[in-house]
Amino acid sequence: MDSAERPLALTLGDPAGIGPDITLLAFQARLSTAVPPFVLIGDPAVLAERARTLGLTAKIEPVDAPAATPSLFAKALPVLPVPIGGNVVAGRPDSAAAGAVRQSIEQAVALVRSGEASAVVTNPISKAILTRAGFAFPGHTEFLAALAGRASSDAVMMLVGGDLKVVPVTIHMPLKEVMGALTETRIVKTLLTTAHDLGRYFGLARSRIAVTGLNPHAGEDGTMGREEIDVILPAIEAARRQGLDVTGPHSADTLFHAEARKTYDVAVAMYHDQALIPVKTLAFDTGVNVTLGLPFVRTSPDHGTAFALAGTGKASPRSLIEALRLANTMWPHAEPKP
Amino acid sequence: MDSAERPLALTLGDPAGIGPDITLLAFQARLSTAVPPFVLIGDPAVLAERARTLGLTAKIEPVDAPAATPSLFAKALPVLPVPIGGNVVAGRPDSAAAGAVRQSIEQAVALVRSGEASAVVTNPISKAILTRAGFAFPGHTEFLAALAGRASSDAVMMLVGGDLKVVPVTIHMPLKEVMGALTETRIVKTLLTTAHDLGRYFGLARSRIAVTGLNPHAGEDGTMGREEIDVILPAIEAARRQGLDVTGPHSADTLFHAEARKTYDVAVAMYHDQALIPVKTLAFDTGVNVTLGLPFVRTSPDHGTAFALAGTGKASPRSLIEALRLANTMWPHAEPKP
Repeated sequence: MDSAERPLALTLGDPAGIGPDITLLAFQARLSTAVPPFVLIGDPAVLAERARTLGLTAKIEPVDAPAATPSLFAKALPVLPVPIGGNVVAGRPDSAAAGAVRQSIEQAVALVRSGEASAVVTNPISKAILTRAGFAFPGHTEFLAALAGRASSDAVMMLVGGDLKVVPVTIHMPLKEVMGALTETRIVKTLLTTAHDLGRYFGLARSRIAVTGLNPHAGEDGTMGREEIDVILPAIEAARRQGLDVTGPHSADTLFHAEARKTYDVAVAMYHDQALIPVKTLAFDTGVNVTLGLPFVRTSPDHGTAFALAGTGKASPRSLIEALRLANTMWPHAEPKP
Repeated sequence: MDSAERPLALTLGDPAGIGPDITLLAFQARLSTAVPPFVLIGDPAVLAERARTLGLTAKIEPVDAPAATPSLFAKALPVLPVPIGGNVVAGRPDSAAAGAVRQSIEQAVALVRSGEASAVVTNPISKAILTRAGFAFPGHTEFLAALAGRASSDAVMMLVGGDLKVVPVTIHMPLKEVMGALTETRIVKTLLTTAHDLGRYFGLARSRIAVTGLNPHAGEDGTMGREEIDVILPAIEAARRQGLDVTGPHSADTLFHAEARKTYDVAVAMYHDQALIPVKTLAFDTGVNVTLGLPFVRTSPDHGTAFALAGTGKASPRSLIEALRLANTMWPHAEPKP
């Protein structure tokens, strides 16, 4: 199939969350803000009901294959049906939907791996709801890694907001565990995956990577913490020996202003808030979450299910639109050249 | 003395650093960018020499009391002389200047406490150089607290950048020590000092204070760390019982974007990078460091001595200018009303 005919595969996420809302709003904005063609994988009835709730007039069209999508997209929202057994109420999460939520993700991955869709874009899911239904993965990323036959530790999260790309080495753990989790091996692996995938998906043959320290002022030569000397610098040096263009450890507080951002393609930070504070401060509504280290492109909006906003008309599709756009710029780089 | 006649007392900082450079540049910009009158406390010969190096034509005028400053300021840079024994070379720090550096700070405080100057604004010093000369304080803040007869722990650092004010509860310590240093008592004390001084110096009778969590997503109900439940929330509740308007603990990553900043007057963060990353990301060149908890106003530029830039013409006076301006808006609030 000509790659131009392949749509993005968008999952529905938790149907009681804002996934249906922002999907409809992103579809509605497709002409005014150039949203690339996508096929939603989920229950058409949920979308139709949410459209009524929101007073939107989108035409929702079930399709039996992604190939129909691009020609259809100008006039209707293409949906590859995954029916949800049971009633869906906006704002009232129900683990009865968990099977369909999971199937939507599995099908998106299968379509991308078979070449029928171009990249996976995921709407937000609720870990608590899925866990109650026996879902054994802590989140999307780990599930996607498993579907791809990779270890969870192969997946690397990157946040993209405006001109800033940032990768946290550690993510969802208590701050007190970060010190123990930061090993030279882990940092080097993160650097290698980041460099590899910035080449593969962003066309950056040798990306400039800036690494933060862990402590205030990057430890100030060991006077405020030794992790920079004992762990981070050795990891940087090991990555350099493998040919990477890596600088640091830098003071995290002075690495994210406009002038500093010009000096690197991607920043690698040591923990969640060090990476997320700059992205969300600069690009709160438009941040995109990208999973590196998978054999396909996966992006997602940088927010949760926001159950309280579902069906209210207050949810913003901006982050989802940016996730769709970013995925659409990434996957062609990974295609074999003719 | 009429308060309008009192200048700001500006210390020289380390004479081999950029203090002389940015002082001259701030003076030069006084008309175009409305820099309030200040008297520099330092060696006039160092300023004259640095002006020659930089090709600036500022007239430097020794004065024997601050009272002469405001009328003089339009045509000359007033300097209350504190001679430095020995030669000063830009970019070459020398502990021979340490005595004069210290005396400059002591005199600035004395002038403000006697009512001859309005507020203390400090140029950057080098801890390493002063320590070598027997200076027993880890930095400016501790020395100023001692001069004011206060304990070091009474002083609270606040960073101001654009519309953001943020106070870190812990500052210059390794990240691994933060967990142990965060106590309910310490957080409550920081909240009380912050609320008190925002009333005293910013006219905010009941400031809205937003407190961050320590862990990712503020611990997500204890699933990613318990400090929010065990320490931070109890501190917030204790502060509320004392009448303060405090919210939190909030996820730090979503607290600093433009919409969020409208919901509070000051954010209180748990550690250095959590507070400094947002300020320096948003206002790298214009951030100001304010010391709360002292019996007088003290501000300083939010950068160091930058020895490598001294005498090169590359140092920016913007943060110093903002520090002078901010001090000039703060101190009149603390004056007894007629």
